[in-house]
Amino acid sequence: MQKNKNLKQQALSDIEHIQVHGRTTGNLSPLTLFWTGSAVEFNAKGAELWLELEVDYEVYEPWIGIVINGAVVSRQMLVAGRYWVCIFRGMNADAVKNVRIVKEVQAMSGDPGCSLQIHAVRFDGQFLPVEDKPYKLEFIGDSITSGEGTVGAKTEEDWIPMWFSALSNYAAMTAESLNADYRVISQSGWGVLTAWDNNPHCNLPDHYGQVCGLLSGPKNEALGAFRANDFDAWQPDVVIINLGTNDGSAFHSPEWSDQATGETRKQRLNEDGTYHAEDLKSFEEAVRSFLAKLRKNNKKAHLVWAYGMLGIPLMPAIYRAVDAYVNETGDKRVSVFQLPDMTEEAIGSRSHPGAAAHEKASKELTGYIREILRQG
Amino acid sequence: MQKNKNLKQQALSDIEHIQVHGRTTGNLSPLTLFWTGSAVEFNAKGAELWLELEVDYEVYEPWIGIVINGAVVSRQMLVAGRYWVCIFRGMNADAVKNVRIVKEVQAMSGDPGCSLQIHAVRFDGQFLPVEDKPYKLEFIGDSITSGEGTVGAKTEEDWIPMWFSALSNYAAMTAESLNADYRVISQSGWGVLTAWDNNPHCNLPDHYGQVCGLLSGPKNEALGAFRANDFDAWQPDVVIINLGTNDGSAFHSPEWSDQATGETRKQRLNEDGTYHAEDLKSFEEAVRSFLAKLRKNNKKAHLVWAYGMLGIPLMPAIYRAVDAYVNETGDKRVSVFQLPDMTEEAIGSRSHPGAAAHEKASKELTGYIREILRQG
Amino acid sequence: MQKNKNLKQQALSDIEHIQVHGRTTGNLSPLTLFWTGSAVEFNAKGAELWLELEVDYEVYEPWIGIVINGAVVSRQMLVAGRYWVCIFRGMNADAVKNVRIVKEVQAMSGDPGCSLQIHAVRFDGQFLPVEDKPYKLEFIGDSITSGEGTVGAKTEEDWIPMWFSALSNYAAMTAESLNADYRVISQSGWGVLTAWDNNPHCNLPDHYGQVCGLLSGPKNEALGAFRANDFDAWQPDVVIINLGTNDGSAFHSPEWSDQATGETRKQRLNEDGTYHAEDLKSFEEAVRSFLAKLRKNNKKAHLVWAYGMLGIPLMPAIYRAVDAYVNETGDKRVSVFQLPDMTEEAIGSRSHPGAAAHEKASKELTGYIREILRQG
Amino acid sequence: MQKNKNLKQQALSDIEHIQVHGRTTGNLSPLTLFWTGSAVEFNAKGAELWLELEVDYEVYEPWIGIVINGAVVSRQMLVAGRYWVCIFRGMNADAVKNVRIVKEVQAMSGDPGCSLQIHAVRFDGQFLPVEDKPYKLEFIGDSITSGEGTVGAKTEEDWIPMWFSALSNYAAMTAESLNADYRVISQSGWGVLTAWDNNPHCNLPDHYGQVCGLLSGPKNEALGAFRANDFDAWQPDVVIINLGTNDGSAFHSPEWSDQATGETRKQRLNEDGTYHAEDLKSFEEAVRSFLAKLRKNNKKAHLVWAYGMLGIPLMPAIYRAVDAYVNETGDKRVSVFQLPDMTEEAIGSRSHPGAAAHEKASKELTGYIREILRQG
Repeated sequence: MQKNKNLKQQALSDIEHIQVHGRTTGNLSPLTLFWTGSAVEFNAKGAELWLELEVDYEVYEPWIGIVINGAVVSRQMLVAGRYWVCIFRGMNADAVKNVRIVKEVQAMSGDPGCSLQIHAVRFDGQFLPVEDKPYKLEFIGDSITSGEGTVGAKTEEDWIPMWFSALSNYAAMTAESLNADYRVISQSGWGVLTAWDNNPHCNLPDHYGQVCGLLSGPKNEALGAFRANDFDAWQPDVVIINLGTNDGSAFHSPEWSDQATGETRKQRLNEDGTYHAEDLKSFEEAVRSFLAKLRKNNKKAHLVWAYGMLGIPLMPAIYRAVDAYVNETGDKRVSVFQLPDMTEEAIGSRSHPGAAAHEKASKELTGYIREILRQG
Repeated sequence: MQKNKNLKQQALSDIEHIQVHGRTTGNLSPLTLFWTGSAVEFNAKGAELWLELEVDYEVYEPWIGIVINGAVVSRQMLVAGRYWVCIFRGMNADAVKNVRIVKEVQAMSGDPGCSLQIHAVRFDGQFLPVEDKPYKLEFIGDSITSGEGTVGAKTEEDWIPMWFSALSNYAAMTAESLNADYRVISQSGWGVLTAWDNNPHCNLPDHYGQVCGLLSGPKNEALGAFRANDFDAWQPDVVIINLGTNDGSAFHSPEWSDQATGETRKQRLNEDGTYHAEDLKSFEEAVRSFLAKLRKNNKKAHLVWAYGMLGIPLMPAIYRAVDAYVNETGDKRVSVFQLPDMTEEAIGSRSHPGAAAHEKASKELTGYIREILRQG
Repeated sequence: MQKNKNLKQQALSDIEHIQVHGRTTGNLSPLTLFWTGSAVEFNAKGAELWLELEVDYEVYEPWIGIVINGAVVSRQMLVAGRYWVCIFRGMNADAVKNVRIVKEVQAMSGDPGCSLQIHAVRFDGQFLPVEDKPYKLEFIGDSITSGEGTVGAKTEEDWIPMWFSALSNYAAMTAESLNADYRVISQSGWGVLTAWDNNPHCNLPDHYGQVCGLLSGPKNEALGAFRANDFDAWQPDVVIINLGTNDGSAFHSPEWSDQATGETRKQRLNEDGTYHAEDLKSFEEAVRSFLAKLRKNNKKAHLVWAYGMLGIPLMPAIYRAVDAYVNETGDKRVSVFQLPDMTEEAIGSRSHPGAAAHEKASKELTGYIREILRQG
Repeated sequence: MQKNKNLKQQALSDIEHIQVHGRTTGNLSPLTLFWTGSAVEFNAKGAELWLELEVDYEVYEPWIGIVINGAVVSRQMLVAGRYWVCIFRGMNADAVKNVRIVKEVQAMSGDPGCSLQIHAVRFDGQFLPVEDKPYKLEFIGDSITSGEGTVGAKTEEDWIPMWFSALSNYAAMTAESLNADYRVISQSGWGVLTAWDNNPHCNLPDHYGQVCGLLSGPKNEALGAFRANDFDAWQPDVVIINLGTNDGSAFHSPEWSDQATGETRKQRLNEDGTYHAEDLKSFEEAVRSFLAKLRKNNKKAHLVWAYGMLGIPLMPAIYRAVDAYVNETGDKRVSVFQLPDMTEEAIGSRSHPGAAAHEKASKELTGYIREILRQG
């Protein structure tokens, strides 16, 4: 191999023009990417670029995708270790490439040892400024928003990072269609009130205020995951909340119990199969209260509760909750949007929406948000 | 990271059940993959699998794609060195996965230092037999068949491996639709008579008899690239020859000259822009003669000259050449098929057919070959 | 022309096996078709079939479509007069054809002189029984459900019957996908509370109980349009109500006033552009009350409020109204479904959803109703 | 019905601005439409338009399609008689509508009594000039070009006019995409040498020089069908010849014999199922000779032999014949284009290409012809 003698190593923190996507602590020495869809972006005028990564996990390894000039060119598993990954080489040194290295897998609440960090680059050129896109979107969701099932054969059943994707995902597609920067806050199996298994601790709202509060353990604490998120630094135009699917499943799942504390929880069904009124009320209250928390932190954003890719059983409750919130606050910048149901042909792996389902959902959602942005 | 203590290292040559795709020397210690679409395939019953690769190049690095149970899950650049790549981990140890690791980039005639070898695996399970598919297809072609342009943004112009793909390619798509094993013999810029630039040495027929004769240099010689190919070991049902596009370009390109030898060559146009009769004749003779060589080595195959994804200016000549061959030999198992022209929307990178163009071509070609296979 | 001497004339009322679709008075001497999608259907074993029509109008002429074995073969304007129309000729006399002659245009509230009647047939064969389909659907709606805009160029602006179609229509498509018989009750410009221009008399609920109560005049009275509909004779499995689009427009339209009576009406906007609470309440009350009326007449049907092909501004109000109805009655067989918004490419004539928009809406609605029918 | 008192009757021959499509005798008193796709076209500024038709047949009735501002609004059977058909009514009198009334069914060689004539109009407005489109195309073909099978259910088997369409047809679609005027010369079952049943009289070339020479009988003679066509009056830019499909079938059909004269004919297969060389030669000679005849009559046209919607068994012979013609004449403005094969999903009625197959063929052919027109 011919060595490229022009490569110069530079700490990430020393790069003048770098765009970081997704919630972080702000630290670049190194940069920790927590959430799916998180990324570093460069406008790189040079022939060859490498990134120094540091990766660890106990169970679930991270993956990255590489996007050059808007096209996905690579997607790869990241094994544990500290090493260099080549992003591109042999390119025209005089042309500016827009490059994004994107975390393809969600923050892993089930693996306190999982981390992905970027230390430095080796580059033979010059980084130019990356401009903010005209809009900012934040997506909050569960496995659907984590892109679970968008990769892999229909028959796959293992719960592993390989089947997740940030790029083959309605959130990424919608942001691209609208020419928007975006962030994703999502966790497979979680809900707005409880997880699919009735675990009341697995809800997104409780952790919304922190950089990545759904993680746990001393390592993540050291990485700054539990620090307060700096909302002022990034105010979205639209927040899309795609939650409720696991809250719906909880009604059909067995009681959750914590063997340590004896705590139990169950969203109940009536004998006729309808939702128990009291528990449904709790769900609605969770929605209402999450909207209030979102508004507190996102002053100017339109809040869109977008729900339906795996059915709409809780839609009436969501509408009631939004009504309750609007009546209470007078806040008019909240709405509900039904996403198209996954069709038979669009099933991906793990019985989740596949890439085609995400494309369809994105197309509908894009139309809806475009109108919101147009009305300003 | 938790080490998987069940992983056992095994030389590739010690694995009982392994399927190798693409022309090789037969050597597994290590296995050298030359051509795009070449691959190793396993039916792997186990939780975690790694591959030990050895990679080198002076200019053009190889890439691989990973296909699990028929779905592409990864595509990554391979930098120089000898190292382990994780194919999957954390999967259900009791389930059998069909796994293919596929060379995404063509044999590189322009880089005598480029090589991709596989030495060994680390695996915690058991390899089961991989059955041959019911049909065998061989694709012979140029940049189109090498999948140049199927990855990357429309604006890309650099000639680099990143924009090539064996998987996002009509050959792979057609083989999959027909449930066939397949091999690819292809080189960007080359033709049946000359290259796009009139270089008469850059033709596929001259090198057809060797394992990978279009490579050069002592390293490739040592790797066995120039050995006679063992045709008896793999007899295709259909050979698809997608050549002529660069032969057509040669008429519009400047004269080629070899500064060392003073040799020159030019496929000429008449003043009215039509092809010079004599040079067209040479092209036809090259087609006719290649068909004879193909038949010699592929006794039972139907030979399909498939041409048209970038226009059909040489189609009449191809038909004449096929006629000449048929008249001379009485061989009836030869035909011509026009592939659909690339449309504006289907342009990929480097002005080449993009993935959508390959899908369309594959759909038409699949229909045509299915009928041939049906008639037996 | 060779006369077909085997043709025998038969009054409609003398035909043993005839299927009439759409609300009628039950009278077959002659049969009056009022609503769009109304039809006569035969299983006709014979070579040639004619229908004797009687048509009149002052302004808006009817159109019919002819469907043979499920395929639309003809669509034609019906001018005034009493005359014979040939449905098919020259066909294999021994083959049974399923034939439907379908009214393509809505009941015309704006033209008291408009009528379409069928008196008799001329046929050279035998009518065989037409079996009921396994499901029955009723669609209630406005211009969208009347198929306004599904025919004609995008530039068309005239309000004429030519641009309407019962066949190129989500209602027909959904019924076909679900293998269901269906009826349509629809009127362009009308709503559940008021018309688009705030006219409070142009609402569907007031006229739901009659055969075709939104018509007027002595002629329609004589035809039986104002008689009570015989609900017992045809009980749908699902009633789809696609109303609200014109109610939404009313908020943005000038006050309606009746110059004769001095009566006025206006659904008001607040200064900030939001809906006036009191008027929104009236709309919700109209929805709630219509649901009660629908339930009274359709004991076993699932009621689906399907809304959204031209935006969803009233969706929260619809959800509230349905909630109110459910809370009041305990009736659980009511739900709301959001139809996909018309995209730019799917605009038909008169700025209405075109055929492509209807196809998309039908696909989503079909999936939703299929699940309802599956659950029984 | 309110009579439109502004309607004024006018003989067709008295209309200043009228565009007639398709080969005719030039006579407008009345105008006889022979070929499928033949039409009268108006730019009509007025509210209501009627056409006086005179129709007759012994077996096969004509159908028409009505196209307003580019959109098909009606398609109807024409029964025997002389009567008025309303084209539109109730439209904005001040808007100009482009209106085409198109013959949907081919000239009927099997029914010497079949005719469609237009005598006069009733109109309440003004006809404005219709400009020629920038290009002229002529399509010559068989049942495919006659649109047989583009209407009706897959199960239909009767040979009747109902399943034919000029509008749901690759010829019309291609002309529209290229913004071209066009003519069609086509006959179901016919070939360039013989019909599908080996009848040597059923070939298009023999009748190409006459207005509509494939008809027969004294009535058609009186209508001028056998007069020499005035080629100078309409010189196409491109002639598309879609013939060969029935010539291919002839090889697989029984011998044809004329019981009256004892004449017989058979295109023979060899024992191994290949085409008999001599008979194949006859086919090629027919192609070559037809090209010469076409060139004689169409001096400036590019001649495109377009073949393949129902397979390509005769493609090599077509290429040879074109080569022979080019070698003999030096004429370079001739080429061959392979149309995409009909797929399973695109089958229409009578096992013929359905509308989807025509759309696909049109898309490919349009791309090919656009390039020819671009090169001028």
